[in-house]
Amino acid sequence: MSEQVELTKREAILRSAFIIFTEKGYHAAKVSDVAELAKVGKGTVYEYFSSKEDLLRGVIEEGIKYYMKELTENIKGPTPPWEKIKKMIRRHAEILRENQNISQLIFHNFGIVTEEFHQFLMSQRQAFIEMLKDLIQQGITSGELKPMSTEVAARMILGSMVSIQFETGCLDEASVEEMIKTLANGMMQI
Amino acid sequence: MSEQVELTKREAILRSAFIIFTEKGYHAAKVSDVAELAKVGKGTVYEYFSSKEDLLRGVIEEGIKYYMKELTENIKGPTPPWEKIKKMIRRHAEILRENQNISQLIFHNFGIVTEEFHQFLMSQRQAFIEMLKDLIQQGITSGELKPMSTEVAARMILGSMVSIQFETGCLDEASVEEMIKTLANGMMQI
Repeated sequence: MSEQVELTKREAILRSAFIIFTEKGYHAAKVSDVAELAKVGKGTVYEYFSSKEDLLRGVIEEGIKYYMKELTENIKGPTPPWEKIKKMIRRHAEILRENQNISQLIFHNFGIVTEEFHQFLMSQRQAFIEMLKDLIQQGITSGELKPMSTEVAARMILGSMVSIQFETGCLDEASVEEMIKTLANGMMQI
Repeated sequence: MSEQVELTKREAILRSAFIIFTEKGYHAAKVSDVAELAKVGKGTVYEYFSSKEDLLRGVIEEGIKYYMKELTENIKGPTPPWEKIKKMIRRHAEILRENQNISQLIFHNFGIVTEEFHQFLMSQRQAFIEMLKDLIQQGITSGELKPMSTEVAARMILGSMVSIQFETGCLDEASVEEMIKTLANGMMQI
């Protein structure tokens, strides 16, 4: 079996798991439902994932990789740093609006967090903070942003982004624009 | 046995558990160590807590209650709303500096989160947000703060507070003051 086919089968299982988990909820979902939708045997699922928990970790891992890819897409090109940060915040809110079920999965199934998975989550978080710090430093250097600790500024932006996602009522466009305006008032040079 | 004695014994166990967990780390800690330090039998610990996980949930629950009590102390009296918010943020950072081990316990042991405990955490979070929203509304009414959604503003403050605690380097006084200044620039009327 070629590596290409291996990848495709794993992907098919993960996509099916995503659909089953978000439709039925994680606890009601069965590995056999996932196998059926992915058109593989139940045994095949267990070749790739050791348990239902492991399958959920796989789904969340893919989700986070997609999220990081989408957000970094927005920081390419010659746009001013603050524009890039705004785009990232807006895209973040959009992705969450489109995938409310997956954030439910993440925030309601702490039981699945192993030490290894925790490390993965922390490394993704750290990569995101480093990306923000770079952008903020660019903004300070260009005079667009006030001089301040890039670490503190990055954490304020990330913290605000994470915090609004806890309630869907705060993910509407007006709320997101208000958050951006407040951050801009706090961080940009007048 | 009177209710008073019951409470005291439970408290003694929780305090001992806090010491053992933070000194030895949760995984290395044994229920028998906790019993020994609390000067009760191991069986007595199991009268109050069904498992080591349950004991850790108890420790965290007490910690959060202490935290909420400390923070609400700061919002009494006739001080202007923004002063109260600043005091709360500073006290938050202080408590975390003093208790770095307990936040380690919370953030590294997701496995202990049951549905019931998750509900407790969410209710505490919600109570905190409501308190912040009230303060912000007072500040808007008095003209101290810019008119904005109290929900968004509360979540930005909370998000920033939570976000800086992930790295101890951001909990120093200078970083906390910088965060407060940035929030003030963003939220206060000039």
